[in-house]
Amino acid sequence: MAGVDHLAFERNKAQFDVNELKIVWAGSREELELSDRISRLVANDPVFRKDDRASLDRKELFKTTLRKAAHAWKMIIELRLTEQEANKLRTFVDQPAYTDLHWGMFVPALKGQGTDEQQAKWLPLANKMQIIGCYAQTELGHGSNVQGLETTATFDPKTDEFVIHSPTLTSSKWWPGGLGKVSTHAIVYARLITDGQDQGVHGFIVQLRSLDDHLPLSGITVGDIGMKFGNAAYNSMDNGVLSFDHVRIPRNQMLMRVSQVTREGKYVQSSVPRQLMYGTMVYVRQAIVADASTALSRAVCIATRYSAVRRQFGSQNGGLETQVIDYKTQQARLFPLLASAYAFRFVSEWLKWLYTDVTQRLKANDFSTLPEAHACTAGLKSLTTTATADGIEECRKLCGGHGYLTSSGLPELFAVYVPACTYEGDNTVLLLQVARYLVKTISQLGSGIKPVGTTAYLARVEQLLQYQSDVTRAEDWLKPNVVIEAFEARAARMNVAVAQNLSKFTNPEEGFQELSADLVEAAAAHCQLIVVSKFIEKLQQDIPGKGVKQQLQVLCSIYALFLLHKHLGDFLSTGSINQKQGSLANELLRSLYSQVRPNAIALVDAFNHSDHLLGSTLGRYDGNVYPKLYEEAWKDPLNDSVVPDGFHQYVQPILRQQLRNARL
Amino acid sequence: MAGVDHLAFERNKAQFDVNELKIVWAGSREELELSDRISRLVANDPVFRKDDRASLDRKELFKTTLRKAAHAWKMIIELRLTEQEANKLRTFVDQPAYTDLHWGMFVPALKGQGTDEQQAKWLPLANKMQIIGCYAQTELGHGSNVQGLETTATFDPKTDEFVIHSPTLTSSKWWPGGLGKVSTHAIVYARLITDGQDQGVHGFIVQLRSLDDHLPLSGITVGDIGMKFGNAAYNSMDNGVLSFDHVRIPRNQMLMRVSQVTREGKYVQSSVPRQLMYGTMVYVRQAIVADASTALSRAVCIATRYSAVRRQFGSQNGGLETQVIDYKTQQARLFPLLASAYAFRFVSEWLKWLYTDVTQRLKANDFSTLPEAHACTAGLKSLTTTATADGIEECRKLCGGHGYLTSSGLPELFAVYVPACTYEGDNTVLLLQVARYLVKTISQLGSGIKPVGTTAYLARVEQLLQYQSDVTRAEDWLKPNVVIEAFEARAARMNVAVAQNLSKFTNPEEGFQELSADLVEAAAAHCQLIVVSKFIEKLQQDIPGKGVKQQLQVLCSIYALFLLHKHLGDFLSTGSINQKQGSLANELLRSLYSQVRPNAIALVDAFNHSDHLLGSTLGRYDGNVYPKLYEEAWKDPLNDSVVPDGFHQYVQPILRQQLRNARL
Repeated sequence: MAGVDHLAFERNKAQFDVNELKIVWAGSREELELSDRISRLVANDPVFRKDDRASLDRKELFKTTLRKAAHAWKMIIELRLTEQEANKLRTFVDQPAYTDLHWGMFVPALKGQGTDEQQAKWLPLANKMQIIGCYAQTELGHGSNVQGLETTATFDPKTDEFVIHSPTLTSSKWWPGGLGKVSTHAIVYARLITDGQDQGVHGFIVQLRSLDDHLPLSGITVGDIGMKFGNAAYNSMDNGVLSFDHVRIPRNQMLMRVSQVTREGKYVQSSVPRQLMYGTMVYVRQAIVADASTALSRAVCIATRYSAVRRQFGSQNGGLETQVIDYKTQQARLFPLLASAYAFRFVSEWLKWLYTDVTQRLKANDFSTLPEAHACTAGLKSLTTTATADGIEECRKLCGGHGYLTSSGLPELFAVYVPACTYEGDNTVLLLQVARYLVKTISQLGSGIKPVGTTAYLARVEQLLQYQSDVTRAEDWLKPNVVIEAFEARAARMNVAVAQNLSKFTNPEEGFQELSADLVEAAAAHCQLIVVSKFIEKLQQDIPGKGVKQQLQVLCSIYALFLLHKHLGDFLSTGSINQKQGSLANELLRSLYSQVRPNAIALVDAFNHSDHLLGSTLGRYDGNVYPKLYEEAWKDPLNDSVVPDGFHQYVQPILRQQLRNARL
Repeated sequence: MAGVDHLAFERNKAQFDVNELKIVWAGSREELELSDRISRLVANDPVFRKDDRASLDRKELFKTTLRKAAHAWKMIIELRLTEQEANKLRTFVDQPAYTDLHWGMFVPALKGQGTDEQQAKWLPLANKMQIIGCYAQTELGHGSNVQGLETTATFDPKTDEFVIHSPTLTSSKWWPGGLGKVSTHAIVYARLITDGQDQGVHGFIVQLRSLDDHLPLSGITVGDIGMKFGNAAYNSMDNGVLSFDHVRIPRNQMLMRVSQVTREGKYVQSSVPRQLMYGTMVYVRQAIVADASTALSRAVCIATRYSAVRRQFGSQNGGLETQVIDYKTQQARLFPLLASAYAFRFVSEWLKWLYTDVTQRLKANDFSTLPEAHACTAGLKSLTTTATADGIEECRKLCGGHGYLTSSGLPELFAVYVPACTYEGDNTVLLLQVARYLVKTISQLGSGIKPVGTTAYLARVEQLLQYQSDVTRAEDWLKPNVVIEAFEARAARMNVAVAQNLSKFTNPEEGFQELSADLVEAAAAHCQLIVVSKFIEKLQQDIPGKGVKQQLQVLCSIYALFLLHKHLGDFLSTGSINQKQGSLANELLRSLYSQVRPNAIALVDAFNHSDHLLGSTLGRYDGNVYPKLYEEAWKDPLNDSVVPDGFHQYVQPILRQQLRNARL
């Protein structure tokens, strides 16, 4: 059966040029070629195999992770890979490791918050990995609320040092990846105390372990925080616990780009504007949104391919059963997720532009767009990660029982993905930040302050409050303007309504707390509008390739109308559309699923995921699922012996009725 | 700190008698005492410890499972436990094992489908566990569609035997628990072939392994299917793969209660009505609904307690931060799940009654209520398991980052629970069965056939299509009738609408397929009505205990109004309620959360879950979370050594820039 493409008949049905869509998905021909090249490099190297991961115990798993990280670094050096290529390589290795934090948090924190002298000293060491760093912010008792951290860094003017200390159990650093077993250094966030004054939370470079024997330095207690969700997933990472017993570091190890402590112990602000830090936040969240689209696309690819392979019911006269993908219930759950993967891809592309824009403005000391960019990226991080986590699990369920096997790739994808809903801002907390920004924007509408960027539509609030959709036929919902206006009207009305309810409270904070569930829903409506708008804007560009734009138009309509159907209560209760129009939207949605159906396999092929990355018996490119599932099963350690370990001790005495005297 | 109850201040706030509510939750004082006694027995026995499970590798985990099963069986024998007590014991051991299938599927199948002679022969062996059995139905290529199974059992009149055979790879039995490594016997489902005629799928008792050396018998290939979702979860179970190469069994090993093959090879039906089998299905699904309420209550208990312990933001003047449970966004996500746990409990109680009712009617040859009972249990299984799986994951997210640690108990609870959405009927397939029944019921309304049981409201369809809710104030939504009528109107209108759309198709099956996504939504609306109704009916009974009924009334309203808010689109688009009424419902919901708040901890205490069962650092009864989290962390195998295994090989060469010559 080797080499046979069991999905060829599906691929032949496609009505568009899949290679052109691959370029659109990747962002450019160069990106596609780069990804393709690095992905092959990883897939062809036996060190990077993933199929045995789930059955390894914690220590074995961790050891293979160290090996993969070292092997990857060796490749990066020997092949002289660029930074971009090195990042891709780590992505395709697809196993969380301490290097993620070193390159993703430690080095950027040095660059962003270190002075020129600090960068000159520490960056060469970090860039060559002569030191390995992590990012120690969250504590056992403190997650989202960074300002509530308890760790202290007290300046001692006598010795020109900071004394880093963990005053309580709950002040122990908790969660930082790479901290538990590997990092030699950390950026530690602590309350700066100068002359008895609490100056708030600042970052400090602290060495944790000896560069000679890797033992923790004096006063430092450090270890791993234990097992996490999933068989492998993040258990390859040494998330750590860390506490300090009056550990001293030189004064020049406080990250001093924005504020400094002088030799005399005076706390001073530098001329560097604090807002510069927000640029990093936009960057990080943009990357998270891009990751969401990738993670969701992996799950959708697996579920779509297996839905075409799998057959169930509907056999007539002993013929083949119906492909599961032909069932409307399957389509109605799967195709909106396919559309979401594309939607998130394009919104992340736009966020990349936003980051560039923000950076340029910051350089010119223009901070005017920052609050909007901050709110927008917070909301999109929340929306896309929640939808992706739920979407991966939905894809797993769409694979029936076999999706529950780790060899399907889906349980691990879920377990490794879900932390994204919590890290870099809990998704509910982030939506509340968006809500706060929207309420403020609305309250200022009368005062001549013009809403900017993704909130610009609120300038037309009077008009949107009057809006009545003019949809009379299902096809009307294909028009971009019709969709956008309905989403704008809904978002504007929900946000105005909650702002009005807020104004009834004498204490605004009390009102904000009391109405927070409504605020979250209104903020979510705004964020959905952004994603829909950016998808539509993307389609207003020139998109080459036979049939490619048509496919994306169908997906864009599906994404919008699926949201409309899911949140029909919002649209109806705000009067943005009427019952009949809601029902026409649903009718159109159904017919759009039929248009996707023949293209479904090609639409997931366009993600260009390698079988190695998918790591899935069900999502294989060639669709040869069942022989592979069967083959994988026998590799389980339990099949090493026919009679399992423990049988003679714990089962045979039962069968032979000799339990009474058995030693259990 | 030992012995200090950190949640005492919360418990003191409760406005009701928690011990009385414990009895309501358990079902009776006797049930509560029984559960309490057996639960202590398990919790106090070190063999049953669970805290080390997540870090064991597959073989170690499986061996501890065998040990626990043997130890439990020894206890059952030595303490002369009743069947009910033995079941409880296995439940509290809380680790999936082959015994679940032996007692839960193999023995019941013998009882339900075996003739008196077959029972006389096999039951004593099974009851003493001299043989261990499993239930081999699903195949690699065949799950939901039992009629599509490929395994054959061909009668050979020459030898008076059946030849069991797996004609293809996809016909391999796949998934049966207990099959992979332990079971000596199986009930195998196969297509019966007599005289070249396919007589459909029947059950056969087949010995798989030698009772001497446990090796598979000739012609039998059997093994484990490999790792599944979660660290421990169902990996303690030997779900198996099995194929037959012309394996012969005597004719009397076909389960012949309903149909037989004679010595001459003639296929005949017995006088026992086939419908008897459906009684078992009602029983199994009733148990699944009860399990859903238990699983959800465990997650809710953990999330509620930790939400009271955990503090975040809102500190004023350096005082304590706000308890997370005081945030409305937390309440709006958590309390509906608390209400759902109670709702599912009461509907499962009612299902127990339904099972008794159906059984009595079957004995009297009254099959009239069977189709309705079948549809109703299918729908409730689907609704409760979907909501529970999603609810557990929501509870995990409500615990923030720490919910991601296996020591929180939530990742494993999720991983071990989710198969319930797929087994015993995929949840979407089940809703389609409900839809089919509802459409049929509606189509027969004109013909004088009266809808029965949970569909009785459809007899008032004309009235329900005219219905207009008369809610004018938020408090109106507290009236049971107001709620029921709105849910009835919504369910009736959705089902009538989809039935009307169906009638437009010339080919009904094509219409059913085309509209299946709408059918699923209409069926779900019907199922939600059932749960709401049964909760309300429960509250019409006498419920003793200070304040208990009041608490349950609040939870009942929350359950109903939360559903109404979530599905507002349905209620508005069917015109069952208007925009203003929807907004009043939401307003009331908010105020109900405030009423639950002071009682929240006592409401989860009423589940009476032991710390052993919860297996959660976050959900501990005493709320002493952080010291316990800290302590658990150090038990991870990675912390066995300060410098991790692999460091010298794979990290030190990086730090020392000696990677070029390193052997990786």
